Amino acid sequence: MFSWINVRYLEKVLFLATKNPIQALNREEFIPNLSYDSVIFGFNGKQLKILILQYHNTGLFALPGGFVKRNESLDNAVKRGVKERTGLDQVYLEQFRTFGSLTRSDPSAMKRVLEGNNLDVEAHDWLLDRFISVSYYALINYDEVAPVPDELSDSIDWYPIDGLPDLMMDHKKIVDQALQFLRDNLEKKLVGINLLPSKFTMKQLQEVYEAILGEELRRTTFQRRILGMNILERHEKLFQGKAHKAPYLYSFKSNNAIKSQEEQIIT
Amino acid sequence: MFSWINVRYLEKVLFLATKNPIQALNREEFIPNLSYDSVIFGFNGKQLKILILQYHNTGLFALPGGFVKRNESLDNAVKRGVKERTGLDQVYLEQFRTFGSLTRSDPSAMKRVLEGNNLDVEAHDWLLDRFISVSYYALINYDEVAPVPDELSDSIDWYPIDGLPDLMMDHKKIVDQALQFLRDNLEKKLVGINLLPSKFTMKQLQEVYEAILGEELRRTTFQRRILGMNILERHEKLFQGKAHKAPYLYSFKSNNAIKSQEEQIIT
Repeated sequence: MFSWINVRYLEKVLFLATKNPIQALNREEFIPNLSYDSVIFGFNGKQLKILILQYHNTGLFALPGGFVKRNESLDNAVKRGVKERTGLDQVYLEQFRTFGSLTRSDPSAMKRVLEGNNLDVEAHDWLLDRFISVSYYALINYDEVAPVPDELSDSIDWYPIDGLPDLMMDHKKIVDQALQFLRDNLEKKLVGINLLPSKFTMKQLQEVYEAILGEELRRTTFQRRILGMNILERHEKLFQGKAHKAPYLYSFKSNNAIKSQEEQIIT
Repeated sequence: MFSWINVRYLEKVLFLATKNPIQALNREEFIPNLSYDSVIFGFNGKQLKILILQYHNTGLFALPGGFVKRNESLDNAVKRGVKERTGLDQVYLEQFRTFGSLTRSDPSAMKRVLEGNNLDVEAHDWLLDRFISVSYYALINYDEVAPVPDELSDSIDWYPIDGLPDLMMDHKKIVDQALQFLRDNLEKKLVGINLLPSKFTMKQLQEVYEAILGEELRRTTFQRRILGMNILERHEKLFQGKAHKAPYLYSFKSNNAIKSQEEQIIT
């Protein structure tokens, strides 16, 4: 009969076996030559940040990415990856571009990643081949996330968009295009809401816009435009001591942001 | 010594050998499980149309698409396909979405296409596998194009967007999303310009906008907004008989539309 400790031990062994990279990256399981990369944005109240992982024993920094299993949809592969990294499964996720140049793959860097993880390079040579990558961006509420490194990586950490380490392959370009896409969609889709808790002040919302656009906005103009869009519901005041100065809390009227996500990602 | 006729004959044999679908769809030459589809828009002065091909002996209608060679970039694969179908190589081309659901592929339809072309199904079984498809839309000047069917197809023809035949697989959904993407980008990128000759009247431009948006616009409002954007250069009048009523011709100021294309498609 198993003691509780034995059960925990068994669970751990099974967990490690499941997480074994050699098993996890079995070439038969995945569609070859196709990967995804995710630009996961969070906002800490001041700065727009993204999640960057560092591979074991290589000094290489990269976007969290992965491969598509033969029996899962592209969108589900990305949802799975984001959930594994952030623990969140209700995430605003939108595909923005597929990168397919001949020069984007970097076999020597991938070889370093394999060697840094003590993996047999020959057994994983399909990873040294050319990859076309479908890129997604995700917007998450910074406070709800405890990033988890994957089995190949030392760490996964938040970096401010203006203070990124050197990224491998074309990942800097992917980040730049994600940011451009986010800016282009800020008005149309109100995506900024997804970076905030469900109730927020007008000042917090303005700070999100400013962080994404990289510029300061006039408070009165911003407030007039946002309220004119008739998308916010006003709640109680946020009391912080000085009651007469307490700002109102707002929420997004209907769950349009998530709705627009569902439309987007069912492909 | 070859007579001129012999040379022409030899050229024809070589051409047919190159065009032989068995050779053209050699599995070794292409990235597996990945295809592209193109939604090629044209405007005949009244309606927005797209190019649809019909496969030999199947009754199946589809978007022009194809596969990516191992030694060419994704963008170049699509450019090659559009050039083969339309003869044009300066085309406004933009990637808009990658479709990756598990249910999108239709092996039975692909089998009919192979059989309809008297091709060995077993030798082409990689085509019956799952495909993730990167979709692009193209905007071309209708008058400059003489569509050419590919080797698997009977015909390629223009169909108005509100009068499409039943399309195979998820191609109707791809068309719908392309149209939505085009509408969303109409203001931001002025893409409509690409559907017109280099010089056009304000009325022609308005008709393009109306065809894309599927609604009538007020002439005075439209003209004020477009001229207010300060993007058009005014040329001589288009004389058609009644000189005092002749409309001005306009062109796009700098080649921004093509520039924005170059930015977009270098991935």
